[in-house]
Amino acid sequence: MEKVLKEITPKSSDFSQWYVDVIRKTDMVDYAPMKGFMVMRPYSYRIWEFIQEAMDRRFKETGHENAYFPLLIPEHLLAKEAEHIEGFSAEVAWVTMGGSEVLSERLAVRPTSETIIGAMYSQWIHSYRDLPVLINQWANVVRWEKATRPFLRTTEFLWQEGHTVHRTAEEALRETRQQLEIYREVIEEYLAVPVVQGVKSAGERFAGAVDTYTLEALMGDGRALQAATSHFLGQHFSQAFDIQFLDEDGVLKHGWTTSWGSSTRMIGALIMVHGDDKGLRLPPRLAPIQVVVVPIGRGEERKRVLEHAQTLVAQLGESVRIKLDDRDEFTPGYKFNDWEMRGVPLRIEIGPKDIARKQITLARRDTGEKTSIAENQLRLRIPELMKEIQTELFRQAFEFQKTHSYNVDNYHEMDQYGYRGFFYADWCGSEDCATRLKSETGMTIRCLPFDEFPVTGRCVVCDEPSQYRALFARAY
Amino acid sequence: MEKVLKEITPKSSDFSQWYVDVIRKTDMVDYAPMKGFMVMRPYSYRIWEFIQEAMDRRFKETGHENAYFPLLIPEHLLAKEAEHIEGFSAEVAWVTMGGSEVLSERLAVRPTSETIIGAMYSQWIHSYRDLPVLINQWANVVRWEKATRPFLRTTEFLWQEGHTVHRTAEEALRETRQQLEIYREVIEEYLAVPVVQGVKSAGERFAGAVDTYTLEALMGDGRALQAATSHFLGQHFSQAFDIQFLDEDGVLKHGWTTSWGSSTRMIGALIMVHGDDKGLRLPPRLAPIQVVVVPIGRGEERKRVLEHAQTLVAQLGESVRIKLDDRDEFTPGYKFNDWEMRGVPLRIEIGPKDIARKQITLARRDTGEKTSIAENQLRLRIPELMKEIQTELFRQAFEFQKTHSYNVDNYHEMDQYGYRGFFYADWCGSEDCATRLKSETGMTIRCLPFDEFPVTGRCVVCDEPSQYRALFARAY
Repeated sequence: MEKVLKEITPKSSDFSQWYVDVIRKTDMVDYAPMKGFMVMRPYSYRIWEFIQEAMDRRFKETGHENAYFPLLIPEHLLAKEAEHIEGFSAEVAWVTMGGSEVLSERLAVRPTSETIIGAMYSQWIHSYRDLPVLINQWANVVRWEKATRPFLRTTEFLWQEGHTVHRTAEEALRETRQQLEIYREVIEEYLAVPVVQGVKSAGERFAGAVDTYTLEALMGDGRALQAATSHFLGQHFSQAFDIQFLDEDGVLKHGWTTSWGSSTRMIGALIMVHGDDKGLRLPPRLAPIQVVVVPIGRGEERKRVLEHAQTLVAQLGESVRIKLDDRDEFTPGYKFNDWEMRGVPLRIEIGPKDIARKQITLARRDTGEKTSIAENQLRLRIPELMKEIQTELFRQAFEFQKTHSYNVDNYHEMDQYGYRGFFYADWCGSEDCATRLKSETGMTIRCLPFDEFPVTGRCVVCDEPSQYRALFARAY
Repeated sequence: MEKVLKEITPKSSDFSQWYVDVIRKTDMVDYAPMKGFMVMRPYSYRIWEFIQEAMDRRFKETGHENAYFPLLIPEHLLAKEAEHIEGFSAEVAWVTMGGSEVLSERLAVRPTSETIIGAMYSQWIHSYRDLPVLINQWANVVRWEKATRPFLRTTEFLWQEGHTVHRTAEEALRETRQQLEIYREVIEEYLAVPVVQGVKSAGERFAGAVDTYTLEALMGDGRALQAATSHFLGQHFSQAFDIQFLDEDGVLKHGWTTSWGSSTRMIGALIMVHGDDKGLRLPPRLAPIQVVVVPIGRGEERKRVLEHAQTLVAQLGESVRIKLDDRDEFTPGYKFNDWEMRGVPLRIEIGPKDIARKQITLARRDTGEKTSIAENQLRLRIPELMKEIQTELFRQAFEFQKTHSYNVDNYHEMDQYGYRGFFYADWCGSEDCATRLKSETGMTIRCLPFDEFPVTGRCVVCDEPSQYRALFARAY
């Protein structure tokens, strides 16, 4: 029992080490032999598959289709949109050789695909009848990062990137907001991670965007994580790539484009929002194993209990992702800790006395609560419990976010909270103030939240009249 | 009507040009601005998604889990297995720069992942209790090819690669054969492409394999296409990467590994096996659109027919992938040809007379047959027709394969068939004979089929006593 727990650094004493311990000890990820790269092992990849399913279904329901564009992008294409290349040039991995030949033009391993997709769209779109183009891509991207951390910032990561073209600015803006809402729904309802929605300030925008919409989540250490973004690109890329269409009125016009992305980074949020000193706590909708059954019994009883447990698992297996832990080299106590560490939402314990009483013991991972119920109620009770645990994890996270959100008038007030949490404050709109705050405190403007309105107060940094109500935090 | 048909070169006059016409005019693919790269547009990507679903379900049912390993592999890792690096070195794209820095070691864009996965497995596997490891990965790979053709051979392609480790050679061999059988099932039952199963001769094996099992399909031009392969790797990779486990008997042993892969290449097979002069013919199980409804009617009738068709599509939409072609800029005749070109298995035509008679007209893409049926029978009839068309496409392809398979005693006999088709012949087993045949005729040994037995005849090339019955063909 001690053995497992000792392996994880307590969350409260060193959050950063706790995170690394948790993701490695639970077999979620491993470090690859190249700096900055990680391996997603089956236990985390399965979570990614569930997230993909939830996202992909919503993308298709809103009329999007998947496609696949090349991994490698010629340098001249990447450079076509000026702000875009400026934003990404330092992060690009370059292919310079094919076989034994030196290439005449370097190829970028895609850091994102606006440019190659823009080049293709300019050939596919001719008439207003060809619009809207609503395409999504599931892909890997590479960004040459200096400081990396599994899921949160890795040299390579998996994501989806949507790229759409519309006839009007209004339609493109609607698309941008619609996709943000899909992200919010999946992140809050599947990952059980509450988010604040808003628009990025100019200094925090995607390179080449007119506006970037974002979802910001609060991690267990009081730092913010950008969970997904949706960009209104205006006509920046359609002008750079000649994406034009002949409109119904006979006039040749540039299309209005959007792009939106979410990545394996979300799994990092999931871990940092719900995890505790014992390890992971996984929301049932995304848990690879939703229920684990641990048989308890020694000697002759062992076989009888195991058979009983096998029958139970076979009965429940159709309605829930259930696993029987029949390993004979570990004690029940060890198994309890092992599965708690791996975040399995519900544990069923079953021993000789339970069998005699026709009952079983349930242990919830979210609350630690243990109860006994009649075995014949299990089939109905488990789906209810899955919903309850899903809701409870969201409730706890929402409560944490609420109690760690502060309204401040002057940025020195942030100091008393150790700069941990969501800080709502007025901002004059000047990038100088944002830069000054960042260099002094490490706080950045996460977004201008949709739900907040500019107050007639004064800038939290310079004390001049404010234009915006902004959300500030230290961010991953 | 003429317009669409003229765009496609007849299959019989120039198969190669027909193929390129078909895949581009139907919006399946487009060429990317870099030589050798293609874009998979939604119409082909959807087919890939259906293939993925069918494969992935079977992988999971047989105990496999998905994971994700890095795209970039350090050169020293790629070089660890001698035959492997020899086989792939000429095809590798190299990343030599990250941002503005020159890397101290080149990174290969993965051509396949045995090496990086082997390096991780050596760290994950310690005991016989850790075995078997059954992992699959859906990923993109890059191979620097000189001559490329969409789907069949492109610089980048999408695939899945399974990598497993076992305690015994027998278990690894069973796995290798089991995965080949999954491929056969999906390729024959979903793609409706008949295959010949067999083992590769030494000269045609995967670089580093002990044995390579393969599925060979016959294309419409009489050339063979390797549709999927499954490799028994023996202990080659476990020795190169130190994949060892402590067995139950206390002895440290090397694991036995397998790998198996199938790719977007299969879509090329699908097109070349079923397509005809009018364009694609898609098997219903993989068709993005299974049924298209074309309303027929002018002037005032138009609106009434359209409304009727909309109701019909809404009724049928739950059980079949159906599309209403309500474009007003095209004639029904144009639409018929357009959807035939795109390979939609079934067309429903509906006009004012049909409505009056409470019937509709059905046109099958596989046979060209047109029939009228009562509208109230449609709901039952469509699922039946989907099965019939699926079966009929397989039957036609199987018939083609049968009538283009020949038994020959001397390789000069192949000449009378223009070296087009599957040729079964005896082979002495010498690589010299295989090399000589290839240089003289372009024919290669596709496999030693499971269903054929060595006959007591003489080698088709050198006339010496034979060891094997082999399948010869010119291959893509």
